[in-house]
Amino acid sequence: MSSTLASLVNHQVRLAARPTGRTGPENWQFTEEPVAEPADGGVLVKTLALSLDPAMRGWLNDAKSYIPPVGIGEVMRAGGIGRVIASKHAGFAVGDIVTGGPGVQEYASYTPEQVKRSGLTKIDLRYGSVTQWLNVLGMPGMTGYFGLLEVGEPKPGETVVVSGAAGAVGQTVGQLAKLKGCRAVGIAGGPEKCEWVVKELGFDACIDYKAGSVKDGLKEHCPKGVDVYFDNVGGEILDAVLARITRHARIVICGAISQYNNEGGVVQGPKNYLSLLVNRARMQGMVVFDYADRYGVAIAEMAGYLKAGTMKSKEDVVDGGIAVFPQTLNKLFDGENFGKLVLKVADE
Amino acid sequence: MSSTLASLVNHQVRLAARPTGRTGPENWQFTEEPVAEPADGGVLVKTLALSLDPAMRGWLNDAKSYIPPVGIGEVMRAGGIGRVIASKHAGFAVGDIVTGGPGVQEYASYTPEQVKRSGLTKIDLRYGSVTQWLNVLGMPGMTGYFGLLEVGEPKPGETVVVSGAAGAVGQTVGQLAKLKGCRAVGIAGGPEKCEWVVKELGFDACIDYKAGSVKDGLKEHCPKGVDVYFDNVGGEILDAVLARITRHARIVICGAISQYNNEGGVVQGPKNYLSLLVNRARMQGMVVFDYADRYGVAIAEMAGYLKAGTMKSKEDVVDGGIAVFPQTLNKLFDGENFGKLVLKVADE
Repeated sequence: MSSTLASLVNHQVRLAARPTGRTGPENWQFTEEPVAEPADGGVLVKTLALSLDPAMRGWLNDAKSYIPPVGIGEVMRAGGIGRVIASKHAGFAVGDIVTGGPGVQEYASYTPEQVKRSGLTKIDLRYGSVTQWLNVLGMPGMTGYFGLLEVGEPKPGETVVVSGAAGAVGQTVGQLAKLKGCRAVGIAGGPEKCEWVVKELGFDACIDYKAGSVKDGLKEHCPKGVDVYFDNVGGEILDAVLARITRHARIVICGAISQYNNEGGVVQGPKNYLSLLVNRARMQGMVVFDYADRYGVAIAEMAGYLKAGTMKSKEDVVDGGIAVFPQTLNKLFDGENFGKLVLKVADE
Repeated sequence: MSSTLASLVNHQVRLAARPTGRTGPENWQFTEEPVAEPADGGVLVKTLALSLDPAMRGWLNDAKSYIPPVGIGEVMRAGGIGRVIASKHAGFAVGDIVTGGPGVQEYASYTPEQVKRSGLTKIDLRYGSVTQWLNVLGMPGMTGYFGLLEVGEPKPGETVVVSGAAGAVGQTVGQLAKLKGCRAVGIAGGPEKCEWVVKELGFDACIDYKAGSVKDGLKEHCPKGVDVYFDNVGGEILDAVLARITRHARIVICGAISQYNNEGGVVQGPKNYLSLLVNRARMQGMVVFDYADRYGVAIAEMAGYLKAGTMKSKEDVVDGGIAVFPQTLNKLFDGENFGKLVLKVADE
């Protein structure tokens, strides 16, 4: 073992207990371990930045979902970007910048099987920065891209509404909608976010759900109704949009952040769902992993927009390393993040 | 004016007041009018039988829907079958049996414009009886046919679940599912209906929602999960099915009879709708009128099944004429009807 690795300590955040509502300090355990040389075919990665996502809350519930829950005592699951610091894998060399699922820890040692399973991939920082690779070129960008284009199927001239518009997925969806010739209307919390969504990202309008009635906002800004709704929030906002959809509208169910911390996991169902019947409309769920074999195509398209300046990318980067993971995660559920929430773990 | 027509009196049921929950005698007004000779290009039809449908409850609400509400003081809207007793229209002769929208009255005088708008059509009783023309060859049959095949898109070997299985639409859906090579599982109220659905209609199983847990029934009878759910009822049953759908499942939203009489029109939203996300599934509404230009194809196919004996048709025919319309309508919401509910108005 090299002397440099032997001196390193890996700090980790593990799931200590399942939360019932909101997560608190009692749900997390901080541990440390020595950093070990990777096994044959393995790779050791130093975590640079972690992606903090609403979906993380779902992974804490002991329920059947699209992915197994994080086990008690396990390192918390997280996507992120890192730098290879030791490699016994022919495909990776020391210094490579990689994206994968390191988890909430400072160093991730991938076995050959984990390299495969986590989809560990080299990335090219000429296409975008580390934080952009966690945003429009990463999972949120892929989610917005495939969710809007493949499930929402927007046609030029249609009105696309997206909730969580200042969030990671929302910013991609609205900007893509504009690039595809649609009217883009966001829903976000607070005047600062709404102003940014319109002035910086070029949405046609943004409804501040904290300031007034979403129903009235939709009436004003979607005079011809809503053809595509990309839902990240669920709850009352989903119901307000259901009441304004057009015939043959498409609703993309991507998430429901307003519902994830409900006690007992009880979700508020959309009481206006019969609008689907009246309008011959559909509501369809999506999970980004299904499109993994086409990420390359989407990344190339999105990198082109970034380079041309026709797409902007905003990240809310929190410093402080994994020690501040618990409170940083809750920023998502308080709507405090402004852009894609990224936890910086180490300098490049 | 011919002397025979002059002696006829048309009894009618009109909407007196909008109901808030369940309809009662206070919502209806009985009126009578002389029967008039049809105008040039018009047709006078004697009502033989009326179709009583859950959708009728929706037509009484003063709300935007796929069809305008019935106005206060107007003859209650209803589809039905009648015999032409006077015609000044080149396309119809005295004695023709026709299907259209006569409303809840004994005689319907169609202006030329109404002939067109109501889709008044001659039917051939060699294909099926008057009541079958209101059932599998009529709106319920068309609803089941296009809803299942076009929206549900069942594939051979898949499991299709339908609620209201002993009702007009439900019986068509389950029998068609079997004919298309699927496993058909019904949900109905009471052992008699369930036994009939399995023994007479050939469903693979039927869950009695009054006898026990629909959740357990689905677990037992849909061991591989639910690929297509045709929903006529909404409420708790929709939620139970959502918890058992397979990846890429399709839910057809055709109606929500459990919710139509709720006070204030408040509907219980499906709290398990996020199962659509986990399972990349879709929920889609349908209205049968959209398929009107293809009814002919569907009727030919269904008449073939009837003739071959591979499809059965059960009607619950109530005698008593339009005088018993109010209480007969409520049979639907009490789940008392067994098969398609038909109100007989006159002998052929």
